[in-house]
Amino acid sequence: MPELRHDPIQRRWVIIATERARRPSDFRIERDAGGNGKCPFCYGHEGMTPPEIRAVRESSAPNTPGWKVRVVPNKFPALRIEGDLERAARGQYDRMNGIGAHEVIIETPHHDRDLADLSIEEIALVLGMYRERITDLRNDPRFRYVLVFRNRGSAAGASLAHPHSQLIATPITPRTVAIELESAREHYTAKERCIFCDIIAQEIETHSRIVSADADFVSWCPYASRFPFEVTLAPRRHSHDFATADDSMLAKLARHLREVLLRIKKSLDDPPYNYMLHTAPAYHLKPRRPGYWSTIEQDWHWHLEILPRLTKMAGFEWGTGFYINPTPPEDAARFLREVSL
Amino acid sequence: MPELRHDPIQRRWVIIATERARRPSDFRIERDAGGNGKCPFCYGHEGMTPPEIRAVRESSAPNTPGWKVRVVPNKFPALRIEGDLERAARGQYDRMNGIGAHEVIIETPHHDRDLADLSIEEIALVLGMYRERITDLRNDPRFRYVLVFRNRGSAAGASLAHPHSQLIATPITPRTVAIELESAREHYTAKERCIFCDIIAQEIETHSRIVSADADFVSWCPYASRFPFEVTLAPRRHSHDFATADDSMLAKLARHLREVLLRIKKSLDDPPYNYMLHTAPAYHLKPRRPGYWSTIEQDWHWHLEILPRLTKMAGFEWGTGFYINPTPPEDAARFLREVSL
Repeated sequence: MPELRHDPIQRRWVIIATERARRPSDFRIERDAGGNGKCPFCYGHEGMTPPEIRAVRESSAPNTPGWKVRVVPNKFPALRIEGDLERAARGQYDRMNGIGAHEVIIETPHHDRDLADLSIEEIALVLGMYRERITDLRNDPRFRYVLVFRNRGSAAGASLAHPHSQLIATPITPRTVAIELESAREHYTAKERCIFCDIIAQEIETHSRIVSADADFVSWCPYASRFPFEVTLAPRRHSHDFATADDSMLAKLARHLREVLLRIKKSLDDPPYNYMLHTAPAYHLKPRRPGYWSTIEQDWHWHLEILPRLTKMAGFEWGTGFYINPTPPEDAARFLREVSL
Repeated sequence: MPELRHDPIQRRWVIIATERARRPSDFRIERDAGGNGKCPFCYGHEGMTPPEIRAVRESSAPNTPGWKVRVVPNKFPALRIEGDLERAARGQYDRMNGIGAHEVIIETPHHDRDLADLSIEEIALVLGMYRERITDLRNDPRFRYVLVFRNRGSAAGASLAHPHSQLIATPITPRTVAIELESAREHYTAKERCIFCDIIAQEIETHSRIVSADADFVSWCPYASRFPFEVTLAPRRHSHDFATADDSMLAKLARHLREVLLRIKKSLDDPPYNYMLHTAPAYHLKPRRPGYWSTIEQDWHWHLEILPRLTKMAGFEWGTGFYINPTPPEDAARFLREVSL
């Protein structure tokens, strides 16, 4: 069973994989599996993954070809779905069992067509699957947050080349999300306005950091971008929860996301990237944690963070939590706006 | 002038390099300079660096060969030493000028002898230079913190192979350090004990995570290690400030640090790594920020964090602030203890 351990000085949770422990020699060879006809995410190889949780398919049987989007448990999960948390102290430290969900959303049967190369309809199916899995997992009372994320390219941590997203449900609210929730709540308490809505209004007015804007969505390079060509995407109208978007909104999101990913792909020669969806935490926290929920429908605004991985983290970043970004977001946004699609 | 920009949602400062802005094409070629006889840190190439700030040398003239340790300004500084902060609001955002110091400590004239390969006396000279530069820069009233760090290997962010450390003085207390200071203060407020001393006592008693312990220093793999083979090194006896260590203590530290770096080097086939020194913040904050200083001599404990870079950060880590560590620290410590030196 993996273990969640808490650092009392950095106040940070770490997942310690205790089952498949890696020895020093395991780190000497970097592997990049798949792509040689044995890809477990391609048609005909459904038996190479654990049995599917959900799939979009017309008439074929589960775990056979014919699907358009397929969700399976991660074969090497960071967290395990079975069991209880068993929270406990270990002297100065805190631990709990590594309980959670870790799923893979296989976005297409086509090994070589990345998300940005799919049709708007195909991308909308992927987004619909995000919505369905988030909604389902938020019902589990052990989980406080469901994070959907995507690693593209081995430098961004992807171990398989076949296009896929992942999802991890965690038994605690992640620190990154907790800080954002707190900032949003404090801003709302002081001003009775959503901090994201305020930022979106300023970005649209300033324009210099806008990558793309349509009637429903806006993407911009954040003022304090950590990374070159970092992009945040959010709905223009206030919405606290991605999972409340209807099919028509997801189709519009698919069109906008596709355009932004293509701009990144063309500007930067198909770079490695990560994206992460920050939406509202699990609803069942409502009665238990009134602070989060008293105004969250007003104060929180879901968004997607896209991080091209062009620079390396070094000692200064690890030691301080600062980032050094060699490309001003105003320049990055201009390059992304001006690339021809 | 570089700019420090604040993200109001993540409450994070970012250094935006506005002078030497990098375009998309700059990211397409990874460079690893040096090592071909043109290394700016080797004897005879002193003119390739900005004029030296300090050096350990016997009789030779500044900026000529004959030195043992040499400190120069970083040729491409993340922060600039000249100017005022000019703090200002930009709508929802905050900014200030990127004022700070960014120095390089060239550890040895030998291009191919890494820090772990130097003698104890040579390492002690490097540590003495850390002490001197920290003490000097903390006198500048614009700076709140001085971080000494080391990037080894290009995967750890080193752009030059010649052995060197770096130092950055920042006009704000970095978030990572601020969280640690706060944890230490709260622990002391509740218990009138140093949290690091408590942890060191538990680690020595448990023993399973100890890498090396002598009369003066102890190194262990932290309970909630973020990375495989992460090591924390600290003085066994309470000490809030690295810069108060005398020469005899630095010689003992040199011996201990050398042993730990050799254990990492031998266990993991000379891996890329970062280390960062977390010592007390600038003393001139004493009158301005009484909270930090009321008990800091009692509640804070300097330490060095060593992070081998064997795994990659991916979307889950960026999106949550969690880490996934595939090697339990108990296993890592055993490997590091048992390697033959």
